[in-house]
Amino acid sequence: MRHFIDFSDLTMPEWEELYRRCEDILAHPEDYRDVARGRAMGSLFYEPSTRTSFSFQAAMLRLGGGVFAMSDPGVTSVAKGESLKDTVIMCSGYADVIVIRHPGEGAALAASRYSRVPVVNAGDGGHLHPTQTLTDLAAISRLRGHVPGLRIGFCGDLKHGRTVHSLIRALSAFPGCSFFLISPRELAIPGYLRDFLGRSGQRYAEVTSLEDTLPELDALYMTRVQRERFADPAEYERHKGVYVLTGDKLRAARRELLILHPLPRVDEISPEVDGDPRAAYFEQARLGMYIRMALLMRLLDQPPSPLPPLTGEGGPRLCRNPNCITARERYLPALEAHGACAYCERPFAL
Amino acid sequence: MRHFIDFSDLTMPEWEELYRRCEDILAHPEDYRDVARGRAMGSLFYEPSTRTSFSFQAAMLRLGGGVFAMSDPGVTSVAKGESLKDTVIMCSGYADVIVIRHPGEGAALAASRYSRVPVVNAGDGGHLHPTQTLTDLAAISRLRGHVPGLRIGFCGDLKHGRTVHSLIRALSAFPGCSFFLISPRELAIPGYLRDFLGRSGQRYAEVTSLEDTLPELDALYMTRVQRERFADPAEYERHKGVYVLTGDKLRAARRELLILHPLPRVDEISPEVDGDPRAAYFEQARLGMYIRMALLMRLLDQPPSPLPPLTGEGGPRLCRNPNCITARERYLPALEAHGACAYCERPFAL
Amino acid sequence: MRHFIDFSDLTMPEWEELYRRCEDILAHPEDYRDVARGRAMGSLFYEPSTRTSFSFQAAMLRLGGGVFAMSDPGVTSVAKGESLKDTVIMCSGYADVIVIRHPGEGAALAASRYSRVPVVNAGDGGHLHPTQTLTDLAAISRLRGHVPGLRIGFCGDLKHGRTVHSLIRALSAFPGCSFFLISPRELAIPGYLRDFLGRSGQRYAEVTSLEDTLPELDALYMTRVQRERFADPAEYERHKGVYVLTGDKLRAARRELLILHPLPRVDEISPEVDGDPRAAYFEQARLGMYIRMALLMRLLDQPPSPLPPLTGEGGPRLCRNPNCITARERYLPALEAHGACAYCERPFAL
Repeated sequence: MRHFIDFSDLTMPEWEELYRRCEDILAHPEDYRDVARGRAMGSLFYEPSTRTSFSFQAAMLRLGGGVFAMSDPGVTSVAKGESLKDTVIMCSGYADVIVIRHPGEGAALAASRYSRVPVVNAGDGGHLHPTQTLTDLAAISRLRGHVPGLRIGFCGDLKHGRTVHSLIRALSAFPGCSFFLISPRELAIPGYLRDFLGRSGQRYAEVTSLEDTLPELDALYMTRVQRERFADPAEYERHKGVYVLTGDKLRAARRELLILHPLPRVDEISPEVDGDPRAAYFEQARLGMYIRMALLMRLLDQPPSPLPPLTGEGGPRLCRNPNCITARERYLPALEAHGACAYCERPFAL
Repeated sequence: MRHFIDFSDLTMPEWEELYRRCEDILAHPEDYRDVARGRAMGSLFYEPSTRTSFSFQAAMLRLGGGVFAMSDPGVTSVAKGESLKDTVIMCSGYADVIVIRHPGEGAALAASRYSRVPVVNAGDGGHLHPTQTLTDLAAISRLRGHVPGLRIGFCGDLKHGRTVHSLIRALSAFPGCSFFLISPRELAIPGYLRDFLGRSGQRYAEVTSLEDTLPELDALYMTRVQRERFADPAEYERHKGVYVLTGDKLRAARRELLILHPLPRVDEISPEVDGDPRAAYFEQARLGMYIRMALLMRLLDQPPSPLPPLTGEGGPRLCRNPNCITARERYLPALEAHGACAYCERPFAL
Repeated sequence: MRHFIDFSDLTMPEWEELYRRCEDILAHPEDYRDVARGRAMGSLFYEPSTRTSFSFQAAMLRLGGGVFAMSDPGVTSVAKGESLKDTVIMCSGYADVIVIRHPGEGAALAASRYSRVPVVNAGDGGHLHPTQTLTDLAAISRLRGHVPGLRIGFCGDLKHGRTVHSLIRALSAFPGCSFFLISPRELAIPGYLRDFLGRSGQRYAEVTSLEDTLPELDALYMTRVQRERFADPAEYERHKGVYVLTGDKLRAARRELLILHPLPRVDEISPEVDGDPRAAYFEQARLGMYIRMALLMRLLDQPPSPLPPLTGEGGPRLCRNPNCITARERYLPALEAHGACAYCERPFAL
C-alpha cells in the first residue's frame, strides 16, 4: 500500500506525473466529478487547521467523493483514552483514504502501520507538512512555468518553519536552484538542514536583510516571525519590522517575482501588497486544492489491502525526542532509519 | 458575480422565477439530484445556528453537491488571527458557493468583496437574514396560494427582530398588504422602519393586544419576547403572557389563518397549538430548504470569475456603529450608500 | 413509517434479509454507490461518539448519499432551549433518515413520534444501542458462518453494559445458544435480565473466572471494568487483572474462538492479543459499517410520510426513572407497554 508521509515518497517522475494531472484537472474539472463516487475520506485532525482541512475536504468533494471528519478530538473516543492505533484501524475499515494531522512527530508514519487504506500526512507536529510542499511546488511550476534554476528567498523564522525545511529539501531535487535564507541570526535554519545543503552541494547564502536580497529573487517565501520565539522581547521589537513585506520594499524587486506564503498570514505581509500582481499567495492556496485532488486520485487508485500484521509491538523506547509520537503511543516499536528514529527523524541518543 | 446579501438583490420577476423553481423541486425532487454533482459549498458559520446551517447543507446535498463547514470558529485559522478577507479569499478558491453567518453587521457584503464565487448571507448580526425572508415568502406563497392583499400580524419583540424587519420590507413590494404590529410599546418597530412604512404608503397599525387583533389576520408571524430586552423585569412579567399564543386565543381566529414563526420557538407558542391545522411554522421551516435549493441552483449557474481587485483598502473609518463589520475588520474601505454605511446601513454620524 | 429503535423491531426473516444484503454489499460494493444519490442523513449526536458516528456517516457516503451532522449540541438551537421534539420535526423536514444518539433513555422512541422520516437509534443513554447488536450479530454470522448453537462468554461489567444486555436478548431468538456470564459478583447482570433468561429457558451460567471458562467458548465478548463502578476501590484493584484478556489466558482457548469487543478498548485486552488470529474486534467494527449500509438502505426504501399528528401531548408523568427522556422533555405523553414505561422500559412505580 502506497501512503504519502513525506515528499520524498514520490520519485521525480511521479511528481511530474502528479503535476501534469493537476494541470489537467485545472483545465477540465468536469472530467473528474465521478472519480471518487461512493468513496469516503476519513479526516483525522487532532489539531485545528481550517485551510488544510478545507482544501482536502473540497478536493475529495470535487472528485465526487464524501468526507467524514473528526473536527475536535475532545468529542471523540480519543477522549475515552483510545490509542492512535485503534482509532486508525477503526477508521481504515470505514474510509478509502485517511488524512491525518497530529501534534506527534511521526504520527502519520505510525498511523500508516495500522491502516488498510492509504494515509496522507497533513502535518505531524513540527516535523513534516508534505502536502504544503506539493502546494508550493505546484504554485512555482504553474506561475513560473518551471522549477529548475529558481532563485528563491526564504524570509522570517527559518528555525521553526517546517514548511520552509520541507520545501528546501524538495527544491534540492531540482537542478540549479539557489537559496537565500533571510532571517535574524537566532532564527536561522537548523544545523541539520545547513549540513544537508552543504553535503548536497546546493548554492545557498544566509543573510539578515530582506531589503538587500529582494532584487536577486525569482520567488520570495514569507513566513511569520512570532514574538514568543525570542528569548528577549526587545530582540523581537528590533527585528519584526525588518521581516515585514511592504509595498516600499517591493519597489526594488523584479517584475516576475512570485510572493509566496503558506498562510494564514498575520502581519508579515502588509495588506497593500495583496493588490500587487506579484502577490501569489492566494493563488498558491487555491492550487493546493488541485494538487491534493491529484494526490487523492493517485492514492485511491490502489486495490484494497488487508490490515497489516499487528505483531512486533512494544519493546524499549529508543527515541529521546519528547515530541516524537513514540513518547505518546508506547506500543509503537522502535524503528531506526539512517541511525535516527524512523518516526521523527531525530538521531537516537547514544 | 451575483451574490445574495439582501432580499432586495432580487427583482420581483427574479423572486417569482425562484419560487416557481422551488415549486418544481417540491414536485420533482429526483430531477435535481445531479445539479451540483462534484461541486462544493463552503459553510462559514462564525455563530452557531443549527436550523439555518442544516437547511443550507441539506439543500446542497439534495442537489447532489458536497459541503465543507467551519462549525466552530474557535478551532480555525480565525483563532490564529486571520482576517475575514483572507479566510474568504481562501475559501472562495475551494468552494463553488460560500454561505456565511457572522456577528458583524455587513459581514456578508464585506465577504462578497473578496470572493471568486457567489456569497450567500445566512445572517449578519442583527442586520439581515434574507434567506429567512425567502423562507417566509415561500411559506405564504405555497400555503396561502399568493402574497398580494395579505393581512399579516407581527407579534412580540418587533424592535430587535431582524426577521420581522426584513419580511415587512419584502412584503411592501407586493400590492395591498396590511401590517398589524403587535407588541409592548417598548418593543415597537424601530423608527426607521416606521418612516419606511409611512414613506412607501403601506397600510399598518401599531397595537398592543394580540387577542383583539387575531380575528383580522390571514397570517400571524410570532416572535419571542425575551426578558433581557426589558429595562424593568416587572414590565416583562406584566407583558409576557399577552404575547404567548395559546389554543384559547386561537378560537377567535380565522379558519384560514397561517401561524408562522422563524424558529427556534421556546414558549411563545404553547405546544397544544402544534396540533392545530393552522400551525404552519414546521412546514415553513421545511419549505426553507427547498427555496434555498432554488437559490443555490441560481447562484451556482454563473461562470467562475477571477478574484476581485484587492485595491482601495483601508482609509479612515466613517461608520460609528460598534457592531458594524468595519469595526472589527479595519482594512475594509468605508462605503457609502444613500448617506448611510453600505455595510450595516446605519447613517454615518455627522 | 418503519423506524429502528430496538433490535426487536426486526423479525427473524427481516434480520436474515438484512444480513444477506450486508453480505452482498461486501461482495459488490460498487453496485451500491448510487442507492442514496441526492439523499441526506441527519446525524443528531447529543453525546460524543466517533466510532458510531463515523460508521453511520461512512455507510451513508458509500451509498452515494450525503450527511449533515450536529457534532456538538453546545453550538446548536439546543443551547437556545429548543425541545427534542422541535429539533426532530425540523430535521425530519430536511433529511431522508435521522440517526440519533442521546443521553435520555427512550430518546429515539420519543424522536420517532415527531419524525416524517425513519429514525435510527444510535444509543439512548444506558438503555439500548441496537446497531451495535446488528454489528455483533453480523460479525458472528460472517466469521463463524452461523449463529445457532453459539457458546458465548460475556466478560467484565455485565451490570452496566447495554451492548451486552442487547446482544443477550438478541441471541435468545436464535436456537441453542449458551451464555457464560463472567464478572465480579457486584457487576453481575441485572435482575430483569436474569429473569428474562430464566423465563425464556436459555442455558446460562454466572461465573467469576475468565480463565476457567475460556476453553468452553466459541466466542468471547469482552467489556471494560471501570474503577468508578466499584464502591470500594480496593475491590477494583483485586478484580481488574482477572478480567483482562492476555496472550497467556488465550493458550487454553479454542482455535476457532472469536474475540469480540464493542470498542473503544482501553486495557481490558492487552495489545499482544491484537496479533492473534482469533482477535475479531477490529473486523467486527468494520462489518458494523456494512450492516449499517444495509439498514439505511432498508429504511430509505419507504415512501415519504406526513408529519405524525401532534396531539395528545403532556399529561402527568408516570415514569420515575430520572434518566428517562420523559424527565427532560415534559411535553411527552406517558406511554405504557407491558406495565412499564414505553420509553425507557422501567416498570412504572406504583
